[in-house]
Amino acid sequence: MPHKVKDIKLAKQGKINIELAQREMPVMAIIAKDFKKKQPLKNITVACCLHVTKETAVLARALAAGGAKVAICGSNPLSTQDDVAAALAQEGVNVFAWKGISNKDYYRTLNKILDFKPQIIIDDGADVISLIHSHRAELLKTLWAGQEETTTGVIRLKAMAKDGALKFPVVAINDTPTKHMFDNYYGTGQSTMDGLLRATNILLSGKVVVVAGYGYCGKGIALRAKGLGARVVVTEVDPLPALQASMDGFEVMPMARAAGIGDVFLTATGDKDVIVGRHVKLMKDGAILGNSGHFNVEINSSDLHRLSKNHRKVRGQVEEFTLKNGRHIYLIAQGRLMNLAAAEGHPSAVMDMSFADQALICEWLVKNHQRLQKRVYNVPDEIDKKVSRLKLAGMGVKIDVLTPAQKNYLASWEEGT
Amino acid sequence: MPHKVKDIKLAKQGKINIELAQREMPVMAIIAKDFKKKQPLKNITVACCLHVTKETAVLARALAAGGAKVAICGSNPLSTQDDVAAALAQEGVNVFAWKGISNKDYYRTLNKILDFKPQIIIDDGADVISLIHSHRAELLKTLWAGQEETTTGVIRLKAMAKDGALKFPVVAINDTPTKHMFDNYYGTGQSTMDGLLRATNILLSGKVVVVAGYGYCGKGIALRAKGLGARVVVTEVDPLPALQASMDGFEVMPMARAAGIGDVFLTATGDKDVIVGRHVKLMKDGAILGNSGHFNVEINSSDLHRLSKNHRKVRGQVEEFTLKNGRHIYLIAQGRLMNLAAAEGHPSAVMDMSFADQALICEWLVKNHQRLQKRVYNVPDEIDKKVSRLKLAGMGVKIDVLTPAQKNYLASWEEGT
Amino acid sequence: MPHKVKDIKLAKQGKINIELAQREMPVMAIIAKDFKKKQPLKNITVACCLHVTKETAVLARALAAGGAKVAICGSNPLSTQDDVAAALAQEGVNVFAWKGISNKDYYRTLNKILDFKPQIIIDDGADVISLIHSHRAELLKTLWAGQEETTTGVIRLKAMAKDGALKFPVVAINDTPTKHMFDNYYGTGQSTMDGLLRATNILLSGKVVVVAGYGYCGKGIALRAKGLGARVVVTEVDPLPALQASMDGFEVMPMARAAGIGDVFLTATGDKDVIVGRHVKLMKDGAILGNSGHFNVEINSSDLHRLSKNHRKVRGQVEEFTLKNGRHIYLIAQGRLMNLAAAEGHPSAVMDMSFADQALICEWLVKNHQRLQKRVYNVPDEIDKKVSRLKLAGMGVKIDVLTPAQKNYLASWEEGT
Amino acid sequence: MPHKVKDIKLAKQGKINIELAQREMPVMAIIAKDFKKKQPLKNITVACCLHVTKETAVLARALAAGGAKVAICGSNPLSTQDDVAAALAQEGVNVFAWKGISNKDYYRTLNKILDFKPQIIIDDGADVISLIHSHRAELLKTLWAGQEETTTGVIRLKAMAKDGALKFPVVAINDTPTKHMFDNYYGTGQSTMDGLLRATNILLSGKVVVVAGYGYCGKGIALRAKGLGARVVVTEVDPLPALQASMDGFEVMPMARAAGIGDVFLTATGDKDVIVGRHVKLMKDGAILGNSGHFNVEINSSDLHRLSKNHRKVRGQVEEFTLKNGRHIYLIAQGRLMNLAAAEGHPSAVMDMSFADQALICEWLVKNHQRLQKRVYNVPDEIDKKVSRLKLAGMGVKIDVLTPAQKNYLASWEEGT
Repeated sequence: MPHKVKDIKLAKQGKINIELAQREMPVMAIIAKDFKKKQPLKNITVACCLHVTKETAVLARALAAGGAKVAICGSNPLSTQDDVAAALAQEGVNVFAWKGISNKDYYRTLNKILDFKPQIIIDDGADVISLIHSHRAELLKTLWAGQEETTTGVIRLKAMAKDGALKFPVVAINDTPTKHMFDNYYGTGQSTMDGLLRATNILLSGKVVVVAGYGYCGKGIALRAKGLGARVVVTEVDPLPALQASMDGFEVMPMARAAGIGDVFLTATGDKDVIVGRHVKLMKDGAILGNSGHFNVEINSSDLHRLSKNHRKVRGQVEEFTLKNGRHIYLIAQGRLMNLAAAEGHPSAVMDMSFADQALICEWLVKNHQRLQKRVYNVPDEIDKKVSRLKLAGMGVKIDVLTPAQKNYLASWEEGT
Repeated sequence: MPHKVKDIKLAKQGKINIELAQREMPVMAIIAKDFKKKQPLKNITVACCLHVTKETAVLARALAAGGAKVAICGSNPLSTQDDVAAALAQEGVNVFAWKGISNKDYYRTLNKILDFKPQIIIDDGADVISLIHSHRAELLKTLWAGQEETTTGVIRLKAMAKDGALKFPVVAINDTPTKHMFDNYYGTGQSTMDGLLRATNILLSGKVVVVAGYGYCGKGIALRAKGLGARVVVTEVDPLPALQASMDGFEVMPMARAAGIGDVFLTATGDKDVIVGRHVKLMKDGAILGNSGHFNVEINSSDLHRLSKNHRKVRGQVEEFTLKNGRHIYLIAQGRLMNLAAAEGHPSAVMDMSFADQALICEWLVKNHQRLQKRVYNVPDEIDKKVSRLKLAGMGVKIDVLTPAQKNYLASWEEGT
Repeated sequence: MPHKVKDIKLAKQGKINIELAQREMPVMAIIAKDFKKKQPLKNITVACCLHVTKETAVLARALAAGGAKVAICGSNPLSTQDDVAAALAQEGVNVFAWKGISNKDYYRTLNKILDFKPQIIIDDGADVISLIHSHRAELLKTLWAGQEETTTGVIRLKAMAKDGALKFPVVAINDTPTKHMFDNYYGTGQSTMDGLLRATNILLSGKVVVVAGYGYCGKGIALRAKGLGARVVVTEVDPLPALQASMDGFEVMPMARAAGIGDVFLTATGDKDVIVGRHVKLMKDGAILGNSGHFNVEINSSDLHRLSKNHRKVRGQVEEFTLKNGRHIYLIAQGRLMNLAAAEGHPSAVMDMSFADQALICEWLVKNHQRLQKRVYNVPDEIDKKVSRLKLAGMGVKIDVLTPAQKNYLASWEEGT
Repeated sequence: MPHKVKDIKLAKQGKINIELAQREMPVMAIIAKDFKKKQPLKNITVACCLHVTKETAVLARALAAGGAKVAICGSNPLSTQDDVAAALAQEGVNVFAWKGISNKDYYRTLNKILDFKPQIIIDDGADVISLIHSHRAELLKTLWAGQEETTTGVIRLKAMAKDGALKFPVVAINDTPTKHMFDNYYGTGQSTMDGLLRATNILLSGKVVVVAGYGYCGKGIALRAKGLGARVVVTEVDPLPALQASMDGFEVMPMARAAGIGDVFLTATGDKDVIVGRHVKLMKDGAILGNSGHFNVEINSSDLHRLSKNHRKVRGQVEEFTLKNGRHIYLIAQGRLMNLAAAEGHPSAVMDMSFADQALICEWLVKNHQRLQKRVYNVPDEIDKKVSRLKLAGMGVKIDVLTPAQKNYLASWEEGT
């Protein structure tokens, strides 16, 4: 069985969607073209456990163009785009993914892609890597290395490496600037605003938007909220980013004070209980709450339920809570990642870079796997630079090149004039 | 027959939607409360021909709260929100509107609301006012005045007044600052970006957005595109706004040059053929075209068809044209008003002010109709100021008050020190 | 006596300064070139009462290039740049101006330029125009018209016209968009920040800047303060601009509340007593006060003195007031126009447009003076457009031109489709 | 001899200037107050080789308040503020510095401060540290550690440490975020614009400003130029910052193309020959060149001279070059650091943080010097955080504190859920 998808007849629309993504992914286009010519992945099998979306399909196509045999399954029961999966299947990719997959079937598909005896694993949450360690040790003979996309996954793998438990090398895609600096700042910044507008259709001009957290995500959200005419208030727990927020012209204050001022509250902290009952009690009638952090713990929704006498859905992604004090609070997407739940997640142009890192790491692994140890590796600088360079080229942007004399000046200066 | 709507059972969701709009319309809330107490419209009949949306329902409720009998029909065959119409009907408003109404039925509903023998007409495109002049002259005895919302309507009525053909006074709502300065600049600015994101989900950071026209709408669009990280290029035909655009830090150039640079093209000029075949031929593969002007003439879509070898729908509101030169051009919402077609039009917070002008003009007409002549009147300054003042109050914003000494200083200065 | 200046030997530096101004005044360059060829002012005498600065010299040169005999005196005892005056004198301009001129000498110079029997007067504050009315009626025979640059002057002249007292036509340069929209918004915006930095050298990032007044000047100041990283608070007395400020993302509040929050206070209202003792008492230690309004009445400095136990000059343009409550307040340039007093006033690029209006009006008066009545005229639209067009050309910016079909569409639309 | 300054009678104005700096340096105020109470530097001698400015005086006062004996000399022949030096001398600080000091006297003053047998050295360029290594080895017995402020110095010291040549521990102040992130981004950003305006008084609205280099300095400059209304073009040699510049909405292109477009060129790259003859030849008449990098090598001024037929000073900090092609190019401050040469360098508010790092490191050295090795140390994280926290406090900004449950959540998440 070379694939299992919902309905192969959906392939036509899936193909259209992949093409659309491709137009926004010039780096992947360049890589695919180069791969096609150079065949760097010839005779290699790559097993991917990723959200099966139109952007992922662009990655799969590039790997295939490079000569790889690709097997792919979904990394989340709800994120598979069935038409895209169908299109991939029709193109000969070994895809095992459908939306609404059961937990049992999910593990079956993980095993299914491993049956292809991959040299390289591309993982998103470390589930496949775990599975190999626990149940599929026979694959270690043929496996060269893995790649991990998420912060959570990387942390788990580093802990394993530290304890000497990691049985093959893994590259931490997440930690490279071309991934987190662009995904989080530009990607989350825009898509959070997009989610807010789609969910509520409110006018941002003249509104007070409270952004909780001033990390890369929060910085992006604050910048875009300001760019849409809002007055932005920032809350933080760490003095350094709090100071940056102040210097960037934003008001900084504790949530307990911001609560009474804000019209919209957007959380992006990575921590739980950023907005709890005692904050909600202070809020103005009509306050809107949304979260762009990974987990739905930042806004304490059980506090919201506890404080409310009434609760109903008023728009597709908006619930209204009528508090016992008579005020109305609106919660977007039940406090889940609003840029995915109420909008469409990261635009293709951002995924272009993360996936370029992954494709190029495959090529790099072909050349370097033999000298790697059983630990977690960073993406080499030159690959990060290459992705930047290709992205610029894809955008039609040209930059300067150092002359030998300039290089020399920098080098001698670094040695201390 | 006191009403005609699609399905009275939709009233429940309609009621929710009206309530949501109401929370974003504090000026209307204050006016409705005041009207309820003072009953300024007691025994008055107001006939409205307007888009029957949740915001319009808030206006209808305010007029009714002021004692008016309200009859309402739709001003466009496609813009009626059937659930809102049902909710209004259930509350006793005489509403005659449903989505997809036939042309014949449309004129029936116009006549229907006139059967209530209104003292005041609220019109949106001057169709009702025309109808009275042409076929319902018997109403002139009881009719005091009309109000007109659109630029087009106002121009037509002024021409009539000039020729001595206008048979009753009309107030030009469109021309007052609290209408066009906020609707066009803040409203269209945001909703155009919203439409662009919903239609295409592209990343704006790093994109070149060409804005055609630097009037109130174009200024708003350029500001928001910049606020979302785009590099903005402006095209103009009038040197004064072109100079403003330059001074505002934007690149200004003719469309023939912008055509080869832009990733996204947004028109808001009020003129036709802003983007035509000779521009399209110069565009990059993947260029996106959208229009926020009132009519779908700004982007010449027949040129697009003529230049294309292929044409298909690729997303809900996006068509792809494959040009004979092999490039792909994307057209949003067939070149129709993209902030309505691909997003939800003006947020309630903006309509709050336009409709406040209309409600307060009703009250003003009760007191002043007898001294008015058969011509087009501007909204009196004090009403514009009142709407601003109430909006500030609704937003919880307080401002300073001149002391007598300060007033005196200004007055004496104005007389020339 | 063809001129009277401080020291003709200063001409060399004056020439340099005029050349520098010229490079930033492309519109004047185009006009001067065109004037030189067409000689539109041949045999005409123009008498100017203006600040004798390098920019004014560029105007004088253009008029002379057009064939005019130019006589010029200063419009303020302190604003003459002696080196520029010397350079003009050396070039054959009849200049009567030096810095620190006595009041008696000032009126002598006014009379001096009138002795040349001008056809056209260019005035800045209406002093020359007044003098003709009161003491030099014999000139009315040969005089065609005047031009007035200031708001105050225009108001006085309109009052005279209304009473039938105006004895010749005057053009109100001040009221045209290419003057006040650019001078006030872009010019005052930047030069106020410039004055603040030169006076105090404070870091604006993270500071709260309170801008009093949201007219053209205040809007420019708020925009630039935000652009330099400040958090901006706006105070207003008029609800419409207050609402705009809110919608533009600024906090709006009464001065009595802003007083306790601000680090810097900048006034641009045109009214007196915007900041008085009761506000000063609430201010933080270290608060900085400055004014960009025309007169030094906006900040009540006698209140400052009254509340202080100590007072000293701490930097070139900064006084420190030690309040009786122990706090320190800093006043820039004694509350006088800080963009002139602490910086260098409007950049040449802005004066380019105001003076272009004046030069072109001279040409227009040659052609039209005979049909003018004894009243105040606006700058004709076509001259405003021409100035914009020339400025764009000077900046190397090209714009689109309407096709006949587009013109036709606009025209028919204006008649109501 | 406890001090040597230009003129002790200048002390009065020096005192005023120090007080002014102090008001903008709240962190130093808090530290000084705390030091005064706790006397952490009792019986310690600190020898400082720093620019003797009003901000440095605030540092010297804080160290003295903490119980230290302070000896100070200048770190550059031209940067001493003689009035400040006089004031410090009058307060009992052992200061040996005057503006225009000869090279021979400079080394005498270095030796002079070492004669006080310091435990701690605060150095700015590593000259004192070098001197000890080369000629004053007898001090090694009593010396605990040094601090180094500059990039160049740190690089030299690291090289020494690597070779085993470093004879005492040194803390690299330069590398801590509260130093370089604020100095470079906010400080250089504003002061470069300030220098540009003071030097030229041009209007930035509508100008094209080319920023060479998009590191921390270049980012700050680009942001502020945009904030003042300019259209910004960025040049880079490194693809990652180039991509950031693009994503931030700026145009990115090679200097060879930017050369023909720019009105103003500002360099901040750290490399030489960023603007050379072949660029200058392409520039528009009137182009302005300035540098904010540390050395005057970024703009090749000998190329400028070579290409010119004429050259003169036209304003205090502006030279005009008349090229053989007839165009005029303006160079600010001979290509030297324009924010210092044409403005006043970093505002006190920024130095507040760098100097706070240095003061707190003195305290930290008292406690930790015994366990330190002969190598280069980073500023400990907790000191960086403390400086941020104090700065926020000084600005009156409050932030949130993690609850134990939140801390726990973060910790467990970091271990991988």
